[in-house]
Amino acid sequence: MTTVDEPAALSPAQARALFRDGTVTPTSGWASGYTQANLIAVPRDWAYDILLFCQRNPTPCPVLDVTDPGSTATVLAPGADLSTDFPRYRIWREGELAEEPDRVEWGADLVGFLIGCSFTFETALAEAGIPLRHIEQGRNVPMFVTGRQCRPAGRLHGPMVVSMRPVPADQVERAIEISGRMPAVHGAPVHVGDPAGLGIEDLARPDFGEAVEFRPGDVPVFWGCGVTPQAALMASRPPFAITHAPGHMLVTDVRDSAYRV
Amino acid sequence: MTTVDEPAALSPAQARALFRDGTVTPTSGWASGYTQANLIAVPRDWAYDILLFCQRNPTPCPVLDVTDPGSTATVLAPGADLSTDFPRYRIWREGELAEEPDRVEWGADLVGFLIGCSFTFETALAEAGIPLRHIEQGRNVPMFVTGRQCRPAGRLHGPMVVSMRPVPADQVERAIEISGRMPAVHGAPVHVGDPAGLGIEDLARPDFGEAVEFRPGDVPVFWGCGVTPQAALMASRPPFAITHAPGHMLVTDVRDSAYRV
Repeated sequence: MTTVDEPAALSPAQARALFRDGTVTPTSGWASGYTQANLIAVPRDWAYDILLFCQRNPTPCPVLDVTDPGSTATVLAPGADLSTDFPRYRIWREGELAEEPDRVEWGADLVGFLIGCSFTFETALAEAGIPLRHIEQGRNVPMFVTGRQCRPAGRLHGPMVVSMRPVPADQVERAIEISGRMPAVHGAPVHVGDPAGLGIEDLARPDFGEAVEFRPGDVPVFWGCGVTPQAALMASRPPFAITHAPGHMLVTDVRDSAYRV
Repeated sequence: MTTVDEPAALSPAQARALFRDGTVTPTSGWASGYTQANLIAVPRDWAYDILLFCQRNPTPCPVLDVTDPGSTATVLAPGADLSTDFPRYRIWREGELAEEPDRVEWGADLVGFLIGCSFTFETALAEAGIPLRHIEQGRNVPMFVTGRQCRPAGRLHGPMVVSMRPVPADQVERAIEISGRMPAVHGAPVHVGDPAGLGIEDLARPDFGEAVEFRPGDVPVFWGCGVTPQAALMASRPPFAITHAPGHMLVTDVRDSAYRV
């Protein structure tokens, strides 16, 4: 495994090559300025349910690209291979997590969905001087399963998952405005303040990722999260699926600014 | 057929009731401030191709809602019936226009897609003082099949269709900015100026809708158009489909402002 001193300075292709060769790490802050994407891949028979679920729940599940069956290529990153270029994957059988490999077999029947990621608007937040506590603290962003149900689609149903970032109270409005201009990558927060409003019990115990420390004056801000389809897999139990491991994304060749309205 | 003096002042439900009872007219300018939607309905077997085509071509084909098979209900307009509430429909068999009825039979296998419409941003343009020549002249907006191919999806392929509005040259920038903030209803123009840039030969002969007259200083501005899926039907020839007749939309209960970012 290679040690990388300045992951933010890598090109997307350099980052993907490292992951392809075995580097395993959360990708927040890597290849700064380039959009990252979540993965969910299912057999063709389930593809309509996934695509419709995403259409009906665009805030947590904004679709950036859909592959043709059996293809590991994406228009978001020419030359990338979706079966090797994520740092870590999750394989699901009947809704249960079965394995967490760093490369996967991609069957001829498999359709991949690349879902927008909140890391994309982090660049814009950082440019505006809004601190990103999880990056300061070298941690994966914390993610929580909420009490809000997504709008179901066919056989798919499940709760919305959110990512949480502590934001200084006097910068919350600016954070809302900046992310609100990027609807293809989750857009404005779904909630600000009391976690109980989303049915979240304890910010110190995220369901995915790692807990982050608040600085005095920080307020919790919650955004729709591309891990939501994974929660739907757990709830809806299709026979087989592959996803990225939370926080371990595809670094695409698309600039974050491309998703700014 | 009822004569309506002030169609802009009607509520969406009032407008739909008139269309359900047999009024046939283009809906531009009706129920001012409420979003209108294009329709494409196909057998379940074709639904994934349509949804994927829309995902891959979001500028001309922004999906606002998808029905469950056999259902004529939509979250965009509670109480509406998609089989009666458009002023006029088109029935397609093997890609050929077969009928233009004012109500349709909606089979148990049929899935309906409601696609965003440029009429939605017309409200915002009008509020900014940008003239809408087709409304001034009491005509349906002119639409053109372009030389640009959409990104294909499964069995679906076809050219992009655009709507065209003459805009005074000194207001074009403002029109771009205003519509650009509404990506769910076609967003910013795809082209400004010379029609030949889109492969359009003659602005006086639109493929759908009616020609409009230019005032001195007007420039043609072209936006992605929700009739694009109809062009894909003609090119791809699924066995059966129902669409709205161009310009004859569903008036929904959603305010135009809901689609402003």
